[in-house]
Amino acid sequence: MIERIAILGTGLLGTSVGLALRASGFSGSIVGWNRGAEGAQTALASGAIDSIATDPLQAAQASQVVLLATPIYPILDFMEKLSGVLGPEHLITDVGSTKARITEAAGRLFNTPERAAFLPGHPMAGKERGGASLGDANLFRGAVWLFTDDATWQRSAASATLVKDWRQWVTAMGSKTLDLDPARHDELVGWVSHLPQFVATALSALLEDEVGAAPELKDVGGRALREMTRLGSSPYSMWRDIALTNTENIQAALFALEQRLAYLRENLRTPELRKEFEQADRFRRE
Amino acid sequence: MIERIAILGTGLLGTSVGLALRASGFSGSIVGWNRGAEGAQTALASGAIDSIATDPLQAAQASQVVLLATPIYPILDFMEKLSGVLGPEHLITDVGSTKARITEAAGRLFNTPERAAFLPGHPMAGKERGGASLGDANLFRGAVWLFTDDATWQRSAASATLVKDWRQWVTAMGSKTLDLDPARHDELVGWVSHLPQFVATALSALLEDEVGAAPELKDVGGRALREMTRLGSSPYSMWRDIALTNTENIQAALFALEQRLAYLRENLRTPELRKEFEQADRFRRE
Repeated sequence: MIERIAILGTGLLGTSVGLALRASGFSGSIVGWNRGAEGAQTALASGAIDSIATDPLQAAQASQVVLLATPIYPILDFMEKLSGVLGPEHLITDVGSTKARITEAAGRLFNTPERAAFLPGHPMAGKERGGASLGDANLFRGAVWLFTDDATWQRSAASATLVKDWRQWVTAMGSKTLDLDPARHDELVGWVSHLPQFVATALSALLEDEVGAAPELKDVGGRALREMTRLGSSPYSMWRDIALTNTENIQAALFALEQRLAYLRENLRTPELRKEFEQADRFRRE
Repeated sequence: MIERIAILGTGLLGTSVGLALRASGFSGSIVGWNRGAEGAQTALASGAIDSIATDPLQAAQASQVVLLATPIYPILDFMEKLSGVLGPEHLITDVGSTKARITEAAGRLFNTPERAAFLPGHPMAGKERGGASLGDANLFRGAVWLFTDDATWQRSAASATLVKDWRQWVTAMGSKTLDLDPARHDELVGWVSHLPQFVATALSALLEDEVGAAPELKDVGGRALREMTRLGSSPYSMWRDIALTNTENIQAALFALEQRLAYLRENLRTPELRKEFEQADRFRRE
């Protein structure tokens, strides 16, 4: 049974996990660490964590489950450092948005009977802005929480139990779990998550150039425009690491969309336009 | 004072105008006509109209204000037909999404002291699906209702009063009015309305090709994906006329976005990515 959790990175996701665990009945201890002191204080004040750690590695050692909830490169750094201080009585899991690099490191550094377990995870939930103050106990309700676990990994009995327990807590927080191969994960999220983000970024940046000087005209777009540009506020600090660790999949998706837009542009006055609307509607109906 | 209104086309917008007028205290008569009998029956049952007309031109003659709420080409057809049967005691207005063609016809066919007035209008409100059954008394609340009126038009005193009264009803329905030059209108909505629509269409159609065969994977995208593809369900019947009457502005906007996406794709691993995220965020913050 999980009784001691350390959350390293109390931003939007880390804080929301703490709040969701509490709302789901978790009664053990939750210690939090954050690079910036303010985020840790906000998480503490919200009840997402019980105490603030000054040393993340010591806090990890004193816990059973360590949740890495920072951007991707800091997760990879923590994995290296934690591999030296944790053992087969520990589980590390994460919320990183790309999984090939992290899952490769998990196989190299963890997941033998003598070492800590590492369960690579990715909750498909977020907001267009980050930070502990937006933490939300219901953030994961109805979301899909992806794992890129590897059936060939050999874990200690203790850490294998922690893996099972953590998966149950994810379900208790309201998420549906789905296991994917890490390469397939990164390809899939390239289409359904990263492509929509970069489209919203490009659209918002373009519209800022075109109509940004006349703010009253933004109101004209109404709900449709607000939705299509909401992700334009997403934090660069998070997306830089995603762009760097899933470059080829994102490039392929962007290139495919560029071609699709050109096709639409060339067919605004032909019957092909109807087929594109029908195909788009099919995506929504299924 | 407006006491008799005819709504020609009781789809989503026509029905919503009837409901919004009633909710705002309009106590006169509202007669409705629709190409399909079912839409008229639904509008009648919802209380958006009091009676169904079998002959739209007769219904227009018997009314003071005629609202054209069909797609753009039927609006242009109605304008030709109504110019022969209405006079200076009438006001015609519309909700068409492009305004250059309609405003040109309004100047040619109406808006002299001997003829009916025509006030070209465009409420920036809608839903991703059409039809009378989605009619909503609050659809225009908080929306911008654009007009492309022409100050040089000479109207009869009676019809000029109807124009003033209609503008007051638009405000009563909860919309903010804004007057634009028709060419500027079409350019602006090309950026803030038509571009977002065609991006959503292209994105949805592309994703249907890529992940449509595995419907369970669509859940993975979550709220962000749902928002970015919601407009993928928009009706072709309406957007065909928009594409045909605003082709050059939409082509220019699509081409600019294609270039912006290519730039982003080429800079996923460079510091330019930060600048694009900052520019996108600026659009959201203002």
